[in-house]
Amino acid sequence: MKTDKAKIIEVPLPQKPYSIFVASKSVDWDRVTPLLPRSRAVVITSPRVKKFCLPTLRGFLRRKKIECRTILIPDGERHKNLKTVQKIYGELVKCGVDRQTPLLLLGGGVLGDMGGFIAATYLRGVPFIQIPTTLVAQVDSSIGGKLGVDLPEGKNLVGVFDQPQAVFSYVPFLKTLPQREILGGLGEVLKYGVIAEPDLFHATCAHRDRVFSGDLELLENIVYRSSAIKAKVVAQDERESKLRMILNFGHTFGHALEKLTGYRRFLHGEAVGIGMAIAAHVSHRLGFCAEAEKTAVFDGLKEIGFSLKPPSFSKAEWIRALRVDKKSRGGMIHFVFLRRIGDVAIQPISAEDLVKAAVDWL
Amino acid sequence: MKTDKAKIIEVPLPQKPYSIFVASKSVDWDRVTPLLPRSRAVVITSPRVKKFCLPTLRGFLRRKKIECRTILIPDGERHKNLKTVQKIYGELVKCGVDRQTPLLLLGGGVLGDMGGFIAATYLRGVPFIQIPTTLVAQVDSSIGGKLGVDLPEGKNLVGVFDQPQAVFSYVPFLKTLPQREILGGLGEVLKYGVIAEPDLFHATCAHRDRVFSGDLELLENIVYRSSAIKAKVVAQDERESKLRMILNFGHTFGHALEKLTGYRRFLHGEAVGIGMAIAAHVSHRLGFCAEAEKTAVFDGLKEIGFSLKPPSFSKAEWIRALRVDKKSRGGMIHFVFLRRIGDVAIQPISAEDLVKAAVDWL
Repeated sequence: MKTDKAKIIEVPLPQKPYSIFVASKSVDWDRVTPLLPRSRAVVITSPRVKKFCLPTLRGFLRRKKIECRTILIPDGERHKNLKTVQKIYGELVKCGVDRQTPLLLLGGGVLGDMGGFIAATYLRGVPFIQIPTTLVAQVDSSIGGKLGVDLPEGKNLVGVFDQPQAVFSYVPFLKTLPQREILGGLGEVLKYGVIAEPDLFHATCAHRDRVFSGDLELLENIVYRSSAIKAKVVAQDERESKLRMILNFGHTFGHALEKLTGYRRFLHGEAVGIGMAIAAHVSHRLGFCAEAEKTAVFDGLKEIGFSLKPPSFSKAEWIRALRVDKKSRGGMIHFVFLRRIGDVAIQPISAEDLVKAAVDWL
Repeated sequence: MKTDKAKIIEVPLPQKPYSIFVASKSVDWDRVTPLLPRSRAVVITSPRVKKFCLPTLRGFLRRKKIECRTILIPDGERHKNLKTVQKIYGELVKCGVDRQTPLLLLGGGVLGDMGGFIAATYLRGVPFIQIPTTLVAQVDSSIGGKLGVDLPEGKNLVGVFDQPQAVFSYVPFLKTLPQREILGGLGEVLKYGVIAEPDLFHATCAHRDRVFSGDLELLENIVYRSSAIKAKVVAQDERESKLRMILNFGHTFGHALEKLTGYRRFLHGEAVGIGMAIAAHVSHRLGFCAEAEKTAVFDGLKEIGFSLKPPSFSKAEWIRALRVDKKSRGGMIHFVFLRRIGDVAIQPISAEDLVKAAVDWL
C-alpha cells in the first residue's frame, strides 16, 4: 500500500472551493490558523469527544490566543433532530455568535452533519470548519457538504448542501476510538474501494490488523485515499444529480436497516457493511455482476469483521423502510449496483423489485 | 405615474436565474405551466388565503390536469417557528413529496419565508414557486431567496438563502386584502422609493386613495417597479455582503419594534413604517441628511397613513432588542442612513449610539 506524501486535497467547487487537510502531527494544526480571522471561535462538540479530543484543539487555540466558547451536543443519532438544533440555536444567541464567528465542529458524523446544518442555517449561514474525530467522519461525512438532521419518519430527511471553510482530519484522534467505531469507518473505506479503487478495497482487508491496532501511517493513508475519492466525486456533482449517487453503494439497504432497528442497534458503517452485502447479492441476482465478484465483496466484508446478513424483518417492513429515500424519483429508487470491484452502475428500481431480488438474503 | 408594458423581471443570479411574473389576467397563469414538469404539485397555503386565493390556483391546476395536494400552515407570525416547520415536514412525507415535486407557496410573507425554508431543506431541497398574495410579499419577501423562521430570541434568526424557480405575482389577489395589509405593503414600497427611486415614493403618496381602492393598473405598476428594484439589488449581492443591506432601510428599528411588541401588535410593514421615521430622524440627528429630507419622509409616511412614533419603551429595552441583529458584525449594527430620498448610506454604529441618536423620537 503506497503512502502519498501530499496531505492536502482540494475540493474545487466553483462557488466555495476548500481544502481537506489530512494531518498527523501537532504542528499541522497551524494550517487551521489562516481560517480564523478573528480572535474568537465557538467549538461545538459532544461529551465523549470533549474528553478525548477537545484538549488538543483547546491547546492549539490557546497558543494562538483565540478565545473560544464550547457548546455540547449530546452523543448519538437519537439526538440528531430539530429539538437539539433548536437548543443549539439558543446557545449560539447566548454566545453572541455573528456572521463572522467561525464554528469549529469537533466530533463524529452526527455532530458534523447536525453542527453543519446549524452553521448553514443560523443567521442564514455562519462559517464553519469540520474537525472530524471518527474514521467514518474523516473519510466520509465531513466532506461534501451534506448537512442535516433526521425526522421521526426517516434519516437525514432535512438538510442543506453547504460547504465548510475547510476539513481538518487529525488522524491521531482515531487512536481514541473504540474498535467498533473503526470497524464502522472501514465500511465506508471498503465502499470507496468498491466504487472506485480495487487496491484500496483489497489492501484495507489485507492490513485490517494494523488498522485496528492504530497504525497511524496506514490510517493516514486510508483517510487520504478515501478523502481524495470523495472529493473528486463531490467536485463533479455537488448536488447529487447523478454521479454522486455512487457514494450510496450499500446505503439504500443500510439506511433502511438503521430505520428498522430504530438507529440504535447498528453504527452507520455497520449497517452500510450489511447493506453492501445485500447490494452485492442483489447485483448478482439481477445479472449486474458475476458470482465471483459478489463473493469477493463478501470475503472482504467478512475479513474486516462485518456481519453479512441483517436481522429478520418482513418483506413489507423492508419495502416501507426503503420507500422513504431521498434519491427516489417518482417512486423509483436509484440503486447502486455492483458490476465488479472498482465499477458500479446506477439504475432505477422499485422498492418491491429490490426486496424481491434480495429476499433470500434478508 | 408611467405604466410599464413589460411584465417579466429577470433575476439574473449566476447559479439560479429566475423570472418574476407580474400578472393581472387569468391567462397569465399559463406562464407557470412550463415550471410544472410533472402532473403533480403540492400547494402550501394558509386558512385565510385558502378561502380567497386557492380557488384561482386550483382552477388553473385543474385545467392543466395537475393533481395537487394542499397543506395548510396556520396564519400569523407567531407560527413562524421550528415547531410548525417540523409539522409540515411530516405532511410532506405523508404526501410522498420527492425531489421533483414542486411546492407552490401561496400566501403572504410569513408563508413564503417559512414555506421556502421548508422547501430548501426538505430532502436537502425541493423546487418551489412563490405565489405571493399580499402586497408586502409581492413587492418584497417573495423575491431574493431570504427564507427562514423566527427563534424565541429573535425574528428570522434561522434560515437559508435559496432561490425559487419563479415568482408569480397575481395582482388581483391584492383586492382580497384588508386595507391594513395594503398599508403594510406600502411601507416596503415607500422604502424602495427612499433607497432608489424618488418618483416611486412621491407617486405612491400622491395616489394613495387609488391604491387603497384597489386600482389594479396602479397596483400592477407599483408591484412591477418595486420588484424590479429588489431584483436588481439582489442580483448584485445575493448574500447581503454589502449593497443588499440597503433593503433594510427602516428595518433595524422596525424589527426591534416587532420584537418589543411580541410580533403581535404591528404588521411587519407597519413596524417598518415607524422604523423609517426613526431612521430618518436618526439620519438627520447624525448629520446624514438635511431637515427637509427628514420632513419629506415624515410627510410621505403620514400621507399614506403610518404612525411615526413607536409606543414607549425604555432605552435599555430598545438596546437589547436592537442587539440581536443578523447584520451586526463584532457588535456593530450596519445601519442604513437616509441622505436624501433616493439615496442612502450604510454605516456601522453601536446599538447604544443608535438609541442615543433616536431617543427623543422613541
